[in-house]
Amino acid sequence: MNALQRLCKQLGLSFNDQALLREALSHRSYGTPNYERLEYLGDSLLNFVVADELHQAHSDLDEGDLSRLRASLVRGTTLAEIAREYQLGDYLLMGSGELKSGGFDRDSILADVVESIIGATLRDAGFEAARALVVRLYGRRLVNLPAADTLKDSKTRLQEYLQGDGHALPLYKVIEKTGQDHKLSFTVECVSEAQKLRTTATASSRRKAEQAAAQAMLESLSP
Amino acid sequence: MNALQRLCKQLGLSFNDQALLREALSHRSYGTPNYERLEYLGDSLLNFVVADELHQAHSDLDEGDLSRLRASLVRGTTLAEIAREYQLGDYLLMGSGELKSGGFDRDSILADVVESIIGATLRDAGFEAARALVVRLYGRRLVNLPAADTLKDSKTRLQEYLQGDGHALPLYKVIEKTGQDHKLSFTVECVSEAQKLRTTATASSRRKAEQAAAQAMLESLSP
Repeated sequence: MNALQRLCKQLGLSFNDQALLREALSHRSYGTPNYERLEYLGDSLLNFVVADELHQAHSDLDEGDLSRLRASLVRGTTLAEIAREYQLGDYLLMGSGELKSGGFDRDSILADVVESIIGATLRDAGFEAARALVVRLYGRRLVNLPAADTLKDSKTRLQEYLQGDGHALPLYKVIEKTGQDHKLSFTVECVSEAQKLRTTATASSRRKAEQAAAQAMLESLSP
Repeated sequence: MNALQRLCKQLGLSFNDQALLREALSHRSYGTPNYERLEYLGDSLLNFVVADELHQAHSDLDEGDLSRLRASLVRGTTLAEIAREYQLGDYLLMGSGELKSGGFDRDSILADVVESIIGATLRDAGFEAARALVVRLYGRRLVNLPAADTLKDSKTRLQEYLQGDGHALPLYKVIEKTGQDHKLSFTVECVSEAQKLRTTATASSRRKAEQAAAQAMLESLSP
């Protein structure tokens, strides 16, 4: 059994067109064709199948929660986890420079290859086969979901917490800005008049500093 | 024939579950359930089907061109055009405030409803029916594509133009920044040493000003 046959067995696939599977495993450093067109295709199929599974299983969730859950399932770190479970790194075809620099274990490349294999399966065996592969690769991940609430950003959670108690919205204000151009540093203050609380945080962008200040306030509010 | 039956006929659909079609046509201002969950679903199906059609039809295009073509096909203005061709605005269910303010003819709402009807078709009749609807709604748009090159942003096109002639990259520099916070104004200079050309442009962000300066340089380079 050669490497591609072993991989197919592991993934529960039987590829008619082995060249397509090789394309899905070929990094740009290996030449052309490489996995990038199939990754584009697989990415959109994956997004759709995960959206569809969540929509069917969770009639209680609104589109905001569904979108956040989907984003957490299709992000690079989740895909890289899946790639490692199936040892996809062992099958990558790469140029020697990329190999030496550890590309076979890089999250971004591993995530790409999960998508390109999904795309190759679509081209080789059609939509239902590719959908089944997504469901198989994700396994329990599509069932054991994080609480939708925990995926909200800190500002949103703080706002909902305060509004839930009938309080006014928190106020954010940049109180210090230092550095120049791409080395800027923002210090933001978050004030809740109702709770008589004030937190500050510093980060490389206003948005990040606001989120960190909101997180600090959430922490000082939780029992 | 009632309104929903007329719409189905126009779209070439036969809905088993009329409640689902009503949901797809209900704006948030009309109450709950509204079209937002179905829009989330239809959006992801639409993205996938358009990606797939382009991938199959254009083996000559790389993933960058495919992505730009897809973006141009699924953006709000294209969807609103399609909605108007099918007079979808006539079938919207909205609260009276939204109706009076012209919501039935707003691009963003019309675009949403194209997606929600696609999502409803998926739930009602399955993937192949929804895919066929997308292909039907798009018609010639999936065939008469803009030249992939015209979808690139101005900085990319300028860079490719200069590199194609073996010239160095253009340089961008902010030469003036006025105003405060959300009323900032940036003036950017674009310089091509090789062509002995210099253009400037002013906009509300550095990125926009750079694009405009690149566009101005492209125009002064074209015969």
